[in-house]
Amino acid sequence: MNKKDKEINKFLATAFKNYKRTTLSKKIERMLGLYKRKKNVSKRYNQQSMERLFPFKSIPETNYPVKDYIIELERKILPYGTNVSSPKFIGHMTSALPNFTLDVAKLIASLNQNVVKLETAQSATFYERQAIAMLHELLYSNTKEFYEKHIHQTNSTLGIVCSGGTIANLTSLQCARNLLYPQIEKKGLYNESKGVVLCSELGHYSIKKSMGLLGIGSDSLITIPTDDQNKICIDTLKKTIHECQKKQLKIIALIGIAGTTECGSIDPLDALAEIAEIHNIYFHVDAAWGGSIKFSETYAYLLKGIEKADSITIDGHKQLYLPMGIGLVLFKDPKMAALIEKQSEYIIRKTSIDLGKRSIEGSRPAHSFYLQAGFKLLGKKMYARLIEKGIENTNNMADYLDTLDDFELLTFPETNIFLYRYIPETLGNIPKTKTVNKALNTFNKILQKKQMEAGNSFVSYTTVPLKKYDRDLIVGLRIVLASPLVNKTDLKLIIEEQRKLAKDICLYQIYQSIA
Amino acid sequence: MNKKDKEINKFLATAFKNYKRTTLSKKIERMLGLYKRKKNVSKRYNQQSMERLFPFKSIPETNYPVKDYIIELERKILPYGTNVSSPKFIGHMTSALPNFTLDVAKLIASLNQNVVKLETAQSATFYERQAIAMLHELLYSNTKEFYEKHIHQTNSTLGIVCSGGTIANLTSLQCARNLLYPQIEKKGLYNESKGVVLCSELGHYSIKKSMGLLGIGSDSLITIPTDDQNKICIDTLKKTIHECQKKQLKIIALIGIAGTTECGSIDPLDALAEIAEIHNIYFHVDAAWGGSIKFSETYAYLLKGIEKADSITIDGHKQLYLPMGIGLVLFKDPKMAALIEKQSEYIIRKTSIDLGKRSIEGSRPAHSFYLQAGFKLLGKKMYARLIEKGIENTNNMADYLDTLDDFELLTFPETNIFLYRYIPETLGNIPKTKTVNKALNTFNKILQKKQMEAGNSFVSYTTVPLKKYDRDLIVGLRIVLASPLVNKTDLKLIIEEQRKLAKDICLYQIYQSIA
Repeated sequence: MNKKDKEINKFLATAFKNYKRTTLSKKIERMLGLYKRKKNVSKRYNQQSMERLFPFKSIPETNYPVKDYIIELERKILPYGTNVSSPKFIGHMTSALPNFTLDVAKLIASLNQNVVKLETAQSATFYERQAIAMLHELLYSNTKEFYEKHIHQTNSTLGIVCSGGTIANLTSLQCARNLLYPQIEKKGLYNESKGVVLCSELGHYSIKKSMGLLGIGSDSLITIPTDDQNKICIDTLKKTIHECQKKQLKIIALIGIAGTTECGSIDPLDALAEIAEIHNIYFHVDAAWGGSIKFSETYAYLLKGIEKADSITIDGHKQLYLPMGIGLVLFKDPKMAALIEKQSEYIIRKTSIDLGKRSIEGSRPAHSFYLQAGFKLLGKKMYARLIEKGIENTNNMADYLDTLDDFELLTFPETNIFLYRYIPETLGNIPKTKTVNKALNTFNKILQKKQMEAGNSFVSYTTVPLKKYDRDLIVGLRIVLASPLVNKTDLKLIIEEQRKLAKDICLYQIYQSIA
Repeated sequence: MNKKDKEINKFLATAFKNYKRTTLSKKIERMLGLYKRKKNVSKRYNQQSMERLFPFKSIPETNYPVKDYIIELERKILPYGTNVSSPKFIGHMTSALPNFTLDVAKLIASLNQNVVKLETAQSATFYERQAIAMLHELLYSNTKEFYEKHIHQTNSTLGIVCSGGTIANLTSLQCARNLLYPQIEKKGLYNESKGVVLCSELGHYSIKKSMGLLGIGSDSLITIPTDDQNKICIDTLKKTIHECQKKQLKIIALIGIAGTTECGSIDPLDALAEIAEIHNIYFHVDAAWGGSIKFSETYAYLLKGIEKADSITIDGHKQLYLPMGIGLVLFKDPKMAALIEKQSEYIIRKTSIDLGKRSIEGSRPAHSFYLQAGFKLLGKKMYARLIEKGIENTNNMADYLDTLDDFELLTFPETNIFLYRYIPETLGNIPKTKTVNKALNTFNKILQKKQMEAGNSFVSYTTVPLKKYDRDLIVGLRIVLASPLVNKTDLKLIIEEQRKLAKDICLYQIYQSIA
């Protein structure tokens, strides 16, 4: 072995051997502290300047000295990142996370269990099944005997951990599809008759995406309008089902939403469950956002009926306050997932307890460690407090906005997301005709952009049909209040800033541009 | 506010505020060191005893004290985990990982960027596109101008980061399907004529799984036999294509494998590319395992032709030596992914550079930080050395086994995976008839199980049709040598242990059981 080879071997031995805290570890920890205190939360940088910061480069021949890598993080990544955990960043479904999640991240990466197979994830396999059962009980409230029976039974699947809500929704729709078309997995959809999926117009776009992927076609999604509380119209739904039956369209699934992305509204799940039962339709609830409201005794009633859903999507990285990359689908019937079971002579053996047997994903990290840490280090009470605090903050802010002449509350804040808009003084007292709303739409989009560009705080915007305005498409400023670090002062400052920024927007120009 | 609420608020403020190293951080770091030194690598525990360790429990009302959580990790998780990074755990596609990945894990969880949207991942969006371009260049070797043009262009997609090879293969097959059935995403597959996918019999099971999911049906997979080097038979492939054309079956895709799961063999990609071009078939290469062989100047020739693939799957968590949860699909044509583009009025806007526009997954962590860290802190040379060391180890071990009378090498070790089996002395010199092979299959399965149960070391087993034995299904012990920490002594000890364990297996009983 020559000298160079020896050096390389030495490097590898050090790099791959037992973990020790290094300069890099310490620097990263210091950076994290600084990052969270960064004032600029989500400045929208000029595209060209960002492109210049990250130009094309080949993979380097020789490894960088660690200090150069640190410099890259310090100069390029952190200053231009989005501070999603800031109490002033309240426009998306993000929040500060409990600090223990960072230690658990290290633990997961270090143990690097691959939960696709028992052989590469022994205790992690049982730990994951335990975590799923815990969450299943929260939402389905079955008996202790039920859980003791199914928790570790090879043929039972209480749920599947996956990378996010999209894969969870996809998994549930795959079950629904396979239930209706029993030959589909093997034979394909070539000679089948058309099937449709029913969901409110506020359904997440992952539903359409899943339908395209599953071969049932995104055009087969029938969206039902929402009422003045942004919930699915039950009457229209009933009529639609009747029409589908007349046209002999198969109904693959009915989807209820527990926490719409747009405004946090929750469909009347109990009524939906009843309809699904009467017509024998697969009933899925997308509770990616709202599932954990069940923690709160005060607000759990909002989810009444969720326990009748054939499957439920819930995201760990949303209101379970865990890092990105954790979704779950839960099943009422522990045998449902047999519909999507794969067997592979070589990889997943029939009799095994391997978690990969019924998951869309294959090799997969032990993200259930995050779930377990959340359940155990926060417990039901802290989760309840987090949910309640978010809803209280939301109600307070909505009440406050309601007292202001220059703001209009657009949606009823049922949970912790709501929409509102700024109304310039000159438009305050005139009727909101289609033209006025069009001008206000543009006005509020500009306002949102200005606030983002300033970078001190961030709310998002979205466009929804509102019954109040004859289902005109209305642009609303969107606030999501999940972080326990948000306080009244933060919220008032954000409103104050919007008011200031609004003064510089020329309404006359907007009218000219839309005329 | 009462006293209890105050306490809760105080707890949350501490738990969610700036990260500081805590007792938990330090304990976890200590555990990691101990874990890596754990001798027992993958003991197969009794199912019942594992079930007792992880019984059903509700989510606790009140949060655990941190010390109880630590005790749970110390007593239940670590002792019964699989030591996938041990140099004695060489039966699966796992390896020790470079230590910096643990620090990066913490960084990713802390910044918690959601790369689905630019707004929630500003620098991370560009950093990810930069990482993808780097890897694209490694495999497709386009010009600098090509990369400078496409790296950040909104309508160009050089690749998509996803949670693993399964989603990567799914994405590529979705493209291939949509190319052939242009209306499919919207209209579904209801009235289309049947399409097939062609792949060698050693294709990964995610291909079948994807076909079931995509609605094209897993029965539509036509598997082509492999030759004596476990590569796809080109002649049979050509005949099959001819037959498909005669039957007017559409060919959705031809898939080449660069590193079969079973034995690491690499299909003749150049020949496959030529066939695909002649017949105008979408050509995908599943290089989840073998893609990074391109780093080695000595072995890159094995991948000749990969640059002609329409898409390539490569896994970060395999031979890029990164933690679980990172797959990629790369595209030759940067416009290919337009076939799977989703637009959502409310979430992903048309003109944006949002990474979620063309990915199957939605919200997603910034796992490209791992890719960047790997590229920069290891560089091409270290990656080349890792690849070469694995192949050298494999060749050495195969040579050694070849000198032993009681072992038979079953596959040619083209890369760093190979199959062999133990041959008891009494069967050494007799012809390997179907019955003898059947007995040897059982014998080697028992041997593998015994070694796993002992827990000192781990090799896996698999069953493949071998040309050498008239395509009889042969059980082979399977060794995967990716870890740079493996040395000759480890390998000799593993063989020695197998030899010892074999002495206790009764051949007579096996013959009786299969008779």
